[in-house]
Amino acid sequence: MFVLKIMVETSARHIHLTQEDLDTLFGKDYKLTPKKDLSQVGQFACVEKVEVIGPKSSIKMSILGPVRPETQVELAKTEARSIGIDAPTRMSGDLKGTPGCKVIGPKGEITIDHGVIVAKRHAHFTPEQAVEYGVKDGQNIQIKLDYNERALIFGDVIARVSKTAGLAVHIDTDEANAAGLPGTVDGEVIL
Amino acid sequence: MFVLKIMVETSARHIHLTQEDLDTLFGKDYKLTPKKDLSQVGQFACVEKVEVIGPKSSIKMSILGPVRPETQVELAKTEARSIGIDAPTRMSGDLKGTPGCKVIGPKGEITIDHGVIVAKRHAHFTPEQAVEYGVKDGQNIQIKLDYNERALIFGDVIARVSKTAGLAVHIDTDEANAAGLPGTVDGEVIL
Repeated sequence: MFVLKIMVETSARHIHLTQEDLDTLFGKDYKLTPKKDLSQVGQFACVEKVEVIGPKSSIKMSILGPVRPETQVELAKTEARSIGIDAPTRMSGDLKGTPGCKVIGPKGEITIDHGVIVAKRHAHFTPEQAVEYGVKDGQNIQIKLDYNERALIFGDVIARVSKTAGLAVHIDTDEANAAGLPGTVDGEVIL
Repeated sequence: MFVLKIMVETSARHIHLTQEDLDTLFGKDYKLTPKKDLSQVGQFACVEKVEVIGPKSSIKMSILGPVRPETQVELAKTEARSIGIDAPTRMSGDLKGTPGCKVIGPKGEITIDHGVIVAKRHAHFTPEQAVEYGVKDGQNIQIKLDYNERALIFGDVIARVSKTAGLAVHIDTDEANAAGLPGTVDGEVIL
């Protein structure tokens, strides 16, 4: 059988910020300091960190750049529970009705009334890669993994097709641990 | 198709203690206080809690009774990482070469040189249930789940057959979160 492989990356908890919120947290006209380019074209992990405060406790996380039109916190369910936030599983940007939190930076703090989510697992394809893999934007695919005696098949992986995509599946740390992943690995696409 | 269902329970982090370690932590000839019976015959969650100390931080957990021949800490990979312990994925009781930790109770503390594990996912059957489900002790089975837009199929689920079994699959909190489970659910056995 012909097997289509795809890189599976683990997204650690992180925050996306608007320029306005970045300014409040780090000072006026602040510019993020890129630390590492991500697989998605133009996206980067930053040196800067913030503290996200929930009703039970708080947790530090990195900022992902560049700035976005809306501030968004992405964390794993285990982490959300530990800080006392009942975050729903959503695709990035689908923030309506999600819980908020307080965020503290070195120069100030913000309170968002929504924007805290557990990211829904998804796979990025360019239009050309989507043709090659036989997937359509929004399609629900499966990814098979077999590592460290925790073999599993993730269903409900949403294909996202965009010109700036880097071919990769993104899962959170709970999912990576459930699959026993030692780091970035290759998975097998099942349609 | 004939579908075999099985209850899937999430094991939160916990510790099993020897009577000797229990005495050190809670006082001589201490008797555990049962809080809730578990699905496995004779096993119970206790009112008592201890603090497990790793190199990075510590975490509180309940004791599961009755006392055992060997002290064993079971926690999810996310939790092990957060306290700084690189715990391997093992079946309960398979503790050779596993890392240790310090444990603090109200009356004293112990240091174990091994016994910290991430539990390997498994399914309990009585001999009669094993026949009904068509599984053998030690067999690697799959469990299909479909909850909260995080459908998945867990592979590497080890069947354990014993007379005192309560029919159930046991997974940890990382696995439960990866599967979007709202609590105890039914899964589907795939052989």
